[in-house]
Amino acid sequence: MSKEKTSPAVVIVGGGFGGLYAAKALGNRGVAVTLIDRRNFHLFQPLLYQVATGGLSPGDIASPLRGVLGRYRNIRVLQDEVTGLDPENRNVLLESGEIVYDYLLLAAGTRHHYFGNDQWEKLAPGLKTVEDALEMRRRIFNAFEKAEAAATGEEQKRLSTFVIVGGGPTGVELAGAMAELAYGTLRRDFRNFDPTQTRIVLVEAGPRLLPPYAEKDSQKARLTLEKKGVEVRTATAVKEVREGAVILTLPDKNEETIAAETVLWGAGVVGTPLATTIAGATGVETDRQHRLPVGGDLSLANFPEIMVLGDMAHFEQDGQALPGVAQVAMQQGRYAARRILAETRGETAKPFRYKNKGNMAVIGRNAAIADLGFASLSGLPAWLIWVFVHIAYLIGYDNRILVLVQWASNYFTRKRGARLITLPGWSPGEEKSPG
Amino acid sequence: MSKEKTSPAVVIVGGGFGGLYAAKALGNRGVAVTLIDRRNFHLFQPLLYQVATGGLSPGDIASPLRGVLGRYRNIRVLQDEVTGLDPENRNVLLESGEIVYDYLLLAAGTRHHYFGNDQWEKLAPGLKTVEDALEMRRRIFNAFEKAEAAATGEEQKRLSTFVIVGGGPTGVELAGAMAELAYGTLRRDFRNFDPTQTRIVLVEAGPRLLPPYAEKDSQKARLTLEKKGVEVRTATAVKEVREGAVILTLPDKNEETIAAETVLWGAGVVGTPLATTIAGATGVETDRQHRLPVGGDLSLANFPEIMVLGDMAHFEQDGQALPGVAQVAMQQGRYAARRILAETRGETAKPFRYKNKGNMAVIGRNAAIADLGFASLSGLPAWLIWVFVHIAYLIGYDNRILVLVQWASNYFTRKRGARLITLPGWSPGEEKSPG
Repeated sequence: MSKEKTSPAVVIVGGGFGGLYAAKALGNRGVAVTLIDRRNFHLFQPLLYQVATGGLSPGDIASPLRGVLGRYRNIRVLQDEVTGLDPENRNVLLESGEIVYDYLLLAAGTRHHYFGNDQWEKLAPGLKTVEDALEMRRRIFNAFEKAEAAATGEEQKRLSTFVIVGGGPTGVELAGAMAELAYGTLRRDFRNFDPTQTRIVLVEAGPRLLPPYAEKDSQKARLTLEKKGVEVRTATAVKEVREGAVILTLPDKNEETIAAETVLWGAGVVGTPLATTIAGATGVETDRQHRLPVGGDLSLANFPEIMVLGDMAHFEQDGQALPGVAQVAMQQGRYAARRILAETRGETAKPFRYKNKGNMAVIGRNAAIADLGFASLSGLPAWLIWVFVHIAYLIGYDNRILVLVQWASNYFTRKRGARLITLPGWSPGEEKSPG
Repeated sequence: MSKEKTSPAVVIVGGGFGGLYAAKALGNRGVAVTLIDRRNFHLFQPLLYQVATGGLSPGDIASPLRGVLGRYRNIRVLQDEVTGLDPENRNVLLESGEIVYDYLLLAAGTRHHYFGNDQWEKLAPGLKTVEDALEMRRRIFNAFEKAEAAATGEEQKRLSTFVIVGGGPTGVELAGAMAELAYGTLRRDFRNFDPTQTRIVLVEAGPRLLPPYAEKDSQKARLTLEKKGVEVRTATAVKEVREGAVILTLPDKNEETIAAETVLWGAGVVGTPLATTIAGATGVETDRQHRLPVGGDLSLANFPEIMVLGDMAHFEQDGQALPGVAQVAMQQGRYAARRILAETRGETAKPFRYKNKGNMAVIGRNAAIADLGFASLSGLPAWLIWVFVHIAYLIGYDNRILVLVQWASNYFTRKRGARLITLPGWSPGEEKSPG
């Protein structure tokens, strides 16, 4: 990596919503931007659950970063990994070298969190990356295949039981999609077992689903899921995840064991190890979710030139930390760019303020919950808004059309065309015979 | 697996063109059909090279077998693997049991072939499965990423050199797609190196490209590729594939070493190990490509109830073995169904005869070679026919629209939206930080 820099040099770590929106807002302006990501694509994470349930392909919700940013001559994309930070010399250490900055934008997102039970991760995959989604897809459809081949009814029951952990948007959307898959898409596909007998259990430790939403929206979400055939268990904690079983702690503190082949994790998230590295290098303290606390200008204490965006940041507004949603990251990304451009003009930007345009969660075909602040909708109207918003925010024109086509087709045919069970890896000579 | 059977029981091994077309032709007729495949989807192999070069997603060219066949109540799909055959008792041995047949249709396809140098497979992946295509995609786009980060010009040269082995349709189509990728799609995407300097070498041991085609079509294909910037080397054999290099034997028997990070294999194919198993069990001899010789009714000598379809079969017509193309497999699949239905009515079907509807190879945007027998086209008209035919033969309505949309978008924007570098496997806790 060359150390020479044209001033001001902006280094962005992470090509998610925060990093990408910051980069686009700095495109073709008088700054030298370097965007660093381990992956070569931006991922529309809110739709990952659709990939996990065979409704969309990874390519539909991902856009190559070079394709999105290629037309901005002042932006260069580096596929690399950050290994450390030297804030005094304004130097980011990379696996393949180092790079100097005037402004550093940190937007590396979060990973899922097993509340100190990392050994559960193998048994209950989360949903943060394309690989996570493909692993979920593999497990879901393999479970149905095994149920078709099962010898005993008991085995079939375990194989066709799906436990989804976490009553936030991810868990709710996964549960809704699973219900449509099992009770709709697959209804004619098997001969030795009846997919409509599938058991889908959504477990939430808190008292209600979708905690950030209004109470009555949580109620609507619960009723809609139950109408679709999902078993909703609130105030119920996961005590243990085992091979083939989940042990729950019930509201009355008793235990219940559910025999389930497939456990899907939609629960907690924490900042990436990078957040801890940064905290160590800059002397700030991360919060309980390993997020970095930032001031009104999104900067770290004592380092005005280091800004943290999106899920990685702990930003307090009206005495509350902002939630880890795409909207916050996008607005913070745009703000960071505005702030940098203002300062290069010798001006000072007003502190960042998040404008909540509403929360939405889809519960499948025709059903969603939209809390728009001024109004709260549910059912078909909420679903239509949800579809519109998600397509509008997809990066890349062709992605929008592709997703629209697949949704239209999934909607009318109830088929999910992307339900392939792909192999976890590539090994030469694999697949010598299909039979 | 239950051994009880309703007569006649038809067992089909393989859900490719041969097996799927046979199954569909037997749908809702008075036969009990079981289709066995290791995978849960049918794959449109002729477009795999588009997945390898980021033009399409795997989901676009695959259709879940249960989705395609679910509406035929007399067909059941088994995801299983054939381990052996007991032809005397008409019994197929599976990993998870066994199954009895009155008719057995073998359509397990082929795998690629390294002419006795299987150690090359790791260095030069072929293109038969979705995983193969994703591995190629990974290598191609990683090579460009590495070239962008390369320290020396020499390193950059090696990293941006692609050698494609085999001048058949696969090699020609891959070479054409690579040329568009490097000289079109990626032209603006890098800052430290110029993708238009990419070197693409297509190596064919025989005297000309596309051997099955007319001489002048081979010439057109060569000229078109050369116009696109591909270096075509005929009468040139691959002596050795090494890490980072390919050694060629030139027409004058001298050697040449090409330093290349990426080698893509589009050369020979042979029947699967299953073909050898079947040959052993039935006492027939496979041909040099491990294909099973069949008679006019597609059956194995002495076993009229065992038919072999598609790439797995050696069927002679007018003194020549039919080529391993989708068209042959489809027609043989339909014939096998016709023959079975005729015999259940006590009639005898006429021997199978292949009607060649023409050969086609695409050389990218606006350019293709179509040998339609009665006429031979090239350029835009051939390309349009190619597009039309390939979309028409895609299984699944939504696949057709999706591919159409992506092609339209790739055509007008020259973008290839599906160029994600996905990881070869899933391991828990992977991807903790994007930066």
